[in-house]
Amino acid sequence: MNEFFNVPKIAYEGANSENMFAFRHYNPEEEICGKPMKEHLKFAMSWWHTLCGDGTDMFGIGTADKTFGGKTPMEVAKNKVLAGFEFMHKLGIEYFCFHDKDLAPEGNSLQEFQQNLDEIVPLIKEQMEKYHIKCLWGTANLFNHPRYTHGAGTTCNADVYCYAAAQIKKTIDITLELGGMGYVFWGGREGYETLLNTDMGFELDNMAYLMEMAVDYARGKGYKGDFYIEPKPKEPTKHQYDFDASTVLAFLRKYGLEKDFKLNIEANHATLSAHTFQHELRVARINGAFGSIDANQGDPLLGWDTDQFPTNVYDAALAMYEVLKNGGFTNGGLNFDAKVRRASHTYEDLFLAYIAGMDTFALGLKIADKMIKDGRIDAFAKNRYASFDMGIGEKIKNKQTDLCALSDYALSLGSVADEASGRQEYLESILNDIMFGK
Amino acid sequence: MNEFFNVPKIAYEGANSENMFAFRHYNPEEEICGKPMKEHLKFAMSWWHTLCGDGTDMFGIGTADKTFGGKTPMEVAKNKVLAGFEFMHKLGIEYFCFHDKDLAPEGNSLQEFQQNLDEIVPLIKEQMEKYHIKCLWGTANLFNHPRYTHGAGTTCNADVYCYAAAQIKKTIDITLELGGMGYVFWGGREGYETLLNTDMGFELDNMAYLMEMAVDYARGKGYKGDFYIEPKPKEPTKHQYDFDASTVLAFLRKYGLEKDFKLNIEANHATLSAHTFQHELRVARINGAFGSIDANQGDPLLGWDTDQFPTNVYDAALAMYEVLKNGGFTNGGLNFDAKVRRASHTYEDLFLAYIAGMDTFALGLKIADKMIKDGRIDAFAKNRYASFDMGIGEKIKNKQTDLCALSDYALSLGSVADEASGRQEYLESILNDIMFGK
Amino acid sequence: MNEFFNVPKIAYEGANSENMFAFRHYNPEEEICGKPMKEHLKFAMSWWHTLCGDGTDMFGIGTADKTFGGKTPMEVAKNKVLAGFEFMHKLGIEYFCFHDKDLAPEGNSLQEFQQNLDEIVPLIKEQMEKYHIKCLWGTANLFNHPRYTHGAGTTCNADVYCYAAAQIKKTIDITLELGGMGYVFWGGREGYETLLNTDMGFELDNMAYLMEMAVDYARGKGYKGDFYIEPKPKEPTKHQYDFDASTVLAFLRKYGLEKDFKLNIEANHATLSAHTFQHELRVARINGAFGSIDANQGDPLLGWDTDQFPTNVYDAALAMYEVLKNGGFTNGGLNFDAKVRRASHTYEDLFLAYIAGMDTFALGLKIADKMIKDGRIDAFAKNRYASFDMGIGEKIKNKQTDLCALSDYALSLGSVADEASGRQEYLESILNDIMFGK
Amino acid sequence: MNEFFNVPKIAYEGANSENMFAFRHYNPEEEICGKPMKEHLKFAMSWWHTLCGDGTDMFGIGTADKTFGGKTPMEVAKNKVLAGFEFMHKLGIEYFCFHDKDLAPEGNSLQEFQQNLDEIVPLIKEQMEKYHIKCLWGTANLFNHPRYTHGAGTTCNADVYCYAAAQIKKTIDITLELGGMGYVFWGGREGYETLLNTDMGFELDNMAYLMEMAVDYARGKGYKGDFYIEPKPKEPTKHQYDFDASTVLAFLRKYGLEKDFKLNIEANHATLSAHTFQHELRVARINGAFGSIDANQGDPLLGWDTDQFPTNVYDAALAMYEVLKNGGFTNGGLNFDAKVRRASHTYEDLFLAYIAGMDTFALGLKIADKMIKDGRIDAFAKNRYASFDMGIGEKIKNKQTDLCALSDYALSLGSVADEASGRQEYLESILNDIMFGK
Repeated sequence: MNEFFNVPKIAYEGANSENMFAFRHYNPEEEICGKPMKEHLKFAMSWWHTLCGDGTDMFGIGTADKTFGGKTPMEVAKNKVLAGFEFMHKLGIEYFCFHDKDLAPEGNSLQEFQQNLDEIVPLIKEQMEKYHIKCLWGTANLFNHPRYTHGAGTTCNADVYCYAAAQIKKTIDITLELGGMGYVFWGGREGYETLLNTDMGFELDNMAYLMEMAVDYARGKGYKGDFYIEPKPKEPTKHQYDFDASTVLAFLRKYGLEKDFKLNIEANHATLSAHTFQHELRVARINGAFGSIDANQGDPLLGWDTDQFPTNVYDAALAMYEVLKNGGFTNGGLNFDAKVRRASHTYEDLFLAYIAGMDTFALGLKIADKMIKDGRIDAFAKNRYASFDMGIGEKIKNKQTDLCALSDYALSLGSVADEASGRQEYLESILNDIMFGK
Repeated sequence: MNEFFNVPKIAYEGANSENMFAFRHYNPEEEICGKPMKEHLKFAMSWWHTLCGDGTDMFGIGTADKTFGGKTPMEVAKNKVLAGFEFMHKLGIEYFCFHDKDLAPEGNSLQEFQQNLDEIVPLIKEQMEKYHIKCLWGTANLFNHPRYTHGAGTTCNADVYCYAAAQIKKTIDITLELGGMGYVFWGGREGYETLLNTDMGFELDNMAYLMEMAVDYARGKGYKGDFYIEPKPKEPTKHQYDFDASTVLAFLRKYGLEKDFKLNIEANHATLSAHTFQHELRVARINGAFGSIDANQGDPLLGWDTDQFPTNVYDAALAMYEVLKNGGFTNGGLNFDAKVRRASHTYEDLFLAYIAGMDTFALGLKIADKMIKDGRIDAFAKNRYASFDMGIGEKIKNKQTDLCALSDYALSLGSVADEASGRQEYLESILNDIMFGK
Repeated sequence: MNEFFNVPKIAYEGANSENMFAFRHYNPEEEICGKPMKEHLKFAMSWWHTLCGDGTDMFGIGTADKTFGGKTPMEVAKNKVLAGFEFMHKLGIEYFCFHDKDLAPEGNSLQEFQQNLDEIVPLIKEQMEKYHIKCLWGTANLFNHPRYTHGAGTTCNADVYCYAAAQIKKTIDITLELGGMGYVFWGGREGYETLLNTDMGFELDNMAYLMEMAVDYARGKGYKGDFYIEPKPKEPTKHQYDFDASTVLAFLRKYGLEKDFKLNIEANHATLSAHTFQHELRVARINGAFGSIDANQGDPLLGWDTDQFPTNVYDAALAMYEVLKNGGFTNGGLNFDAKVRRASHTYEDLFLAYIAGMDTFALGLKIADKMIKDGRIDAFAKNRYASFDMGIGEKIKNKQTDLCALSDYALSLGSVADEASGRQEYLESILNDIMFGK
Repeated sequence: MNEFFNVPKIAYEGANSENMFAFRHYNPEEEICGKPMKEHLKFAMSWWHTLCGDGTDMFGIGTADKTFGGKTPMEVAKNKVLAGFEFMHKLGIEYFCFHDKDLAPEGNSLQEFQQNLDEIVPLIKEQMEKYHIKCLWGTANLFNHPRYTHGAGTTCNADVYCYAAAQIKKTIDITLELGGMGYVFWGGREGYETLLNTDMGFELDNMAYLMEMAVDYARGKGYKGDFYIEPKPKEPTKHQYDFDASTVLAFLRKYGLEKDFKLNIEANHATLSAHTFQHELRVARINGAFGSIDANQGDPLLGWDTDQFPTNVYDAALAMYEVLKNGGFTNGGLNFDAKVRRASHTYEDLFLAYIAGMDTFALGLKIADKMIKDGRIDAFAKNRYASFDMGIGEKIKNKQTDLCALSDYALSLGSVADEASGRQEYLESILNDIMFGK
């Protein structure tokens, strides 16, 4: 067999500090809280960054070759399939995510694009069976081509809207064919550059209608999985409509889409919208909208989407805490929407980066599990609200009172202080205590 | 009559560049687009900044004296009433906004606070009649006292929740007594410092219930005005629940409060949430939630609420454009939630600052009116979407199609480009052309 | 003659609101403060954005064709020369700026690159003479090629450092050949991605040495112009060494380079470093380091270099105020380091955008001139410091005292208040008064 | 003896997860890299936050009582001395830092202020001897009083400048009296609110002269310690002159102050200026300007100085890495310029917060020591630059070449690639490996 990556299957044992080609914390079969780590984490490879990204940035051309020896666009596409599955297999990754355009060249027409996809998809299925690897979710790339300059679902050009619809339809077909249980709407260029030329209300109506049609189509074909919107506040457009989790919830509720859609939360998009990753997960969770995760990290001092591999263990632990509190993933998983730095341009870096990310989330899972078992943080938080478990507090909680009754009660007290401490520093100490031991 | 401010009533005429105590652009009775400027703008004085703010900041004590010659807290409160109406009268401001705590000292108990309010409110009514000045809206200060350290509607202490309810009830009573047509919920400390000690879902449920009770109470007393939530993303808490317009809409829709509540958009809060002022107004407008405005400006390079007097004419023009497109204010108005800089500590600065703000919005109104009459910008924006007025576009607009039909249509085209230009630079040129003439 | 742009030479007169292909404010020969506008403004075309930029961004391929009908790389390069001069001529732009790589294809070796340049440069000279257009400054592109992944002057690879030196030498030769009076060091990738792999001190020593060698070389060839560093805080690297004007001054002073180097201030880079454009110009001015300007604007709510065409008249006015206070440009000028939005992809947009930018700065110049002639702002600022013109203040100003004397003086006063107002709102009103008249 | 804090001396042993009143990582006498932890860390208590800060913020009054039972201002001041030393003793903190105004009430005149200080300082000396506690550094509070509205060294009022000089002189006297080896200039209100009223050049000249006079005075009295400037970019003013480490270096070099001044780097100020804490320490280090540290942390998503107790172990480890690489502190130390959250208002929180901070830095020290002993990160970084140890690279390093020689060398190579990887993800993995073990 022809190998693309000259490294052995990554070992879970025998790791030592000299050998970075081994996991330190991720052990797929190790049981945590009732199930194997790999089922908690459901790691996925992102087809685009991993098999297509070449390190191009706004100030420089690519530093990595991702043709995998292919000479023609279709040969490249086919080799990516083989390389991708080899890569996942060697790392023990059991899921992948894709855009339609990642899989096959667009050619010169929609027909050609669909034919190319039809040629590639069976190869993917074959590899999926061979390696027991699954599709986590699919999505359509509705932002790269100039036709999507003004958006796709929010374009000002009806023909472009139809073209987007065609791509979505085909990508839903492929996702179903591959057994994917998620279909993502990432807002690409759904947003605006200037309000001077934008009819925001009309554009959002159209975007909602496109989603509604996609749901109708997929459900009609028997699709039981989730639809996701992935919030992002800005970039490439000045303002992206899917700004953050709350903005998306407002949109879904306005258009009655909340039953079919959940959120795909990306760490870097969270910080770009001035929220912590944990915040966005919490918002999703308490609104019953937690779906899936795009695992990466941004640089809190930079204002663009750096999509770094996640290595901050605090963030991973607090994210996995929210996942565990949510009862784990249902149809979603942890997709590495992350790219190696432009200077990390070797195949070796690709493995090292995935190992870094997977180990970080494995550590995060273990710490989150410890946090919950330790119980001190949860107990403190619960106890803060104890006054709502009795007396007037209980009536409030059960919505059995009114403004006059509460006012009378307050007047009967005369004055009210609040002497409880929030204990933030103590709670942060406990977290360090759990993370770093003595 | 005893005057507090040693300046004459501000003239609208005879202004010259030597005399800054005169309006250059604001002429209350001048007709713009069918009604006098003052009815378009509905300027309001903020009781807190204007009559209470003394220039204290995190690194220094106050630089201005706002006791207005009073020796006891009640005497101060009474003199503020006289000074405030003198101030509004001299500037030709016809509305004011207040927090309960701005009007009277809290004393040592809720009873004492309410008695103090009961003594002051009749004085205010008297002055309102004397000067033909109205109340735009009222609100309760639920953040200054240590009891609100953990929030009010989102507190972890049921007694504190009741105390907040009592303040809200009383403030609604006062607002009604004064004929106010707005009651504002500004999120004070409704938010969190750390998720480690916070039950976000429970806190938001409680906040919604408090609003629901407030609506029930006020409507029961015959209140026909609006309730407002004023979005703010952060400060004083790390995360304020009413992050931005969209977040508030998500909240209102979740709890079925969207019929009674509109938004009070503040310019500085908009920029703190990484949106333009115009953006937040647009979001409010297209969701039928535009209510009122807190007119001020932030510094785009600073990360806290500077509450500066608005002097940027671009921002004012684009804000008034949204107001005009919304058909103007109904119950709302332009409240100067703005404070003079700490170094601008004289009474004279207070007048100069209000004049600066009022003139800026008067200019903004004139420019917005010109933008609409000029028509080039609106026409360009409208024309961008022309493809949705016929053929497949019309079907999309009317929601009379489905994914398969759109896909078939796209396949029939083969390929789709988008050759229209967004013309951002041209549109910005037109705006300058309108603002600066030749 | 073959024209690339199907528009007439842009008229300064006859402008009307229907015809955006005319300047409204820029009239090159109109005298302002003793010299023609065009000599105050010294507009320059940026070769890269104007003739090479195709609208590519991180999420999409190009939307504009900049081959100008060329079939081979050299043909494209030659046509760019013709197109560029036609463009400048039609707009009345008298200067241009370039990177070596903008002018000619790199080919497969340094030799080939230099030969290509040698073929193009005479064509440029020819056109310069034909149209009476001058070179404002040149620079070497030391960031696009993968070899510069780790920087050029701050690379970790000595061969790359030499390659950079060779490009600089050749670009200096070309700049001299074209009579340019400026050579720019823009920090490309001079910075770091992570401190974990970076020897910051060594890298900065090397960067300084490269500049020192460049100065020696150019001065040896008789170059009398300026060297510039263009500050930028971040992007593409996480941290760019030339963070802002002050950082560059610290660097120049450390390595004794301050006599040969001035600053090239870019508006968008200023705001990315959390400063206003005016601030950076002021810092340059008071340090005798004001050199040239990259005229564009960023979006204060976005964290990357948007390089928009400047249309904000406030910013342009305050920038030109600093330029006038500096006595105008010496060797520098106003280079439009600005690109049309991705959606503004037509040739027409290119003209509209330049006209927008040139008119904005023409307006800025006129307003700055008015500010100075009006005198109120300057007089207020001057008067604030009047206490330093006499008594103890004068001694301080002349550095003729010591800590004990000042302390004794303060003790003799007992207490000191500061009762002067800073009058920020008043000053902002005056600015609006000057900008918008009555 | 009267105790203020009802807790036992904090134990270093016997810690268990139930008992948060014990250090987990800080063990003062434990030897790390040749000396006891306490000598590496040199923890200091900040008089202001710890003994004066009451939790006031811009939206609410204080939540903590810091009168320590005193009834008059002087009684309060005296009790703070006793409470402060008890606090330091119980925590094993051996240094403190102060502003003049923290120690004694200002009274109604400069004379009164100095008399009050003269009454308090002997009490402090007495306690210092009793507990073997030292003064790390002193500073004058030149920002709280309205007289400093326009700055102190950069004021526009000569009398205010003298008043500042008097405070500085007295504070230097006290610092010397207490044996302090540091005197800090923190830029308080040294900056501007608007450039419209500001003569930046004049203000900076005055600030430099004030520092020069302070140095002359202190050196004249035999002071051998360091002067520090503490960079901060903004707040309270829109722009603070001491923006960041590089800006301060530019200033020091301009005025010839670099021999007497070092930098006091504060973590939160670093992030406010868009730099990491490590970055600012690295800049100080490579410029021979590393002095002391204000240990705290900001919230990367908030734009004001939150001054939180440091609990992020990554940041502490990377900071201590820089300190170790610098050879440790000389005259400086780790001052907790940190305040408990407004909701953490009990004395207990004060202890918990200091323990959190001290343990975090103890962990940071241990990890930094491990990083250096482990050697992988340092070796990787060193090896990146290996090409400068021979051939052409060595000539560059030794500054023994010129532009022509380098260009010739590059031409001899023809083309140069850069095939080394920066390995950021690998290096971050190693850091996690060191921090979290297997």
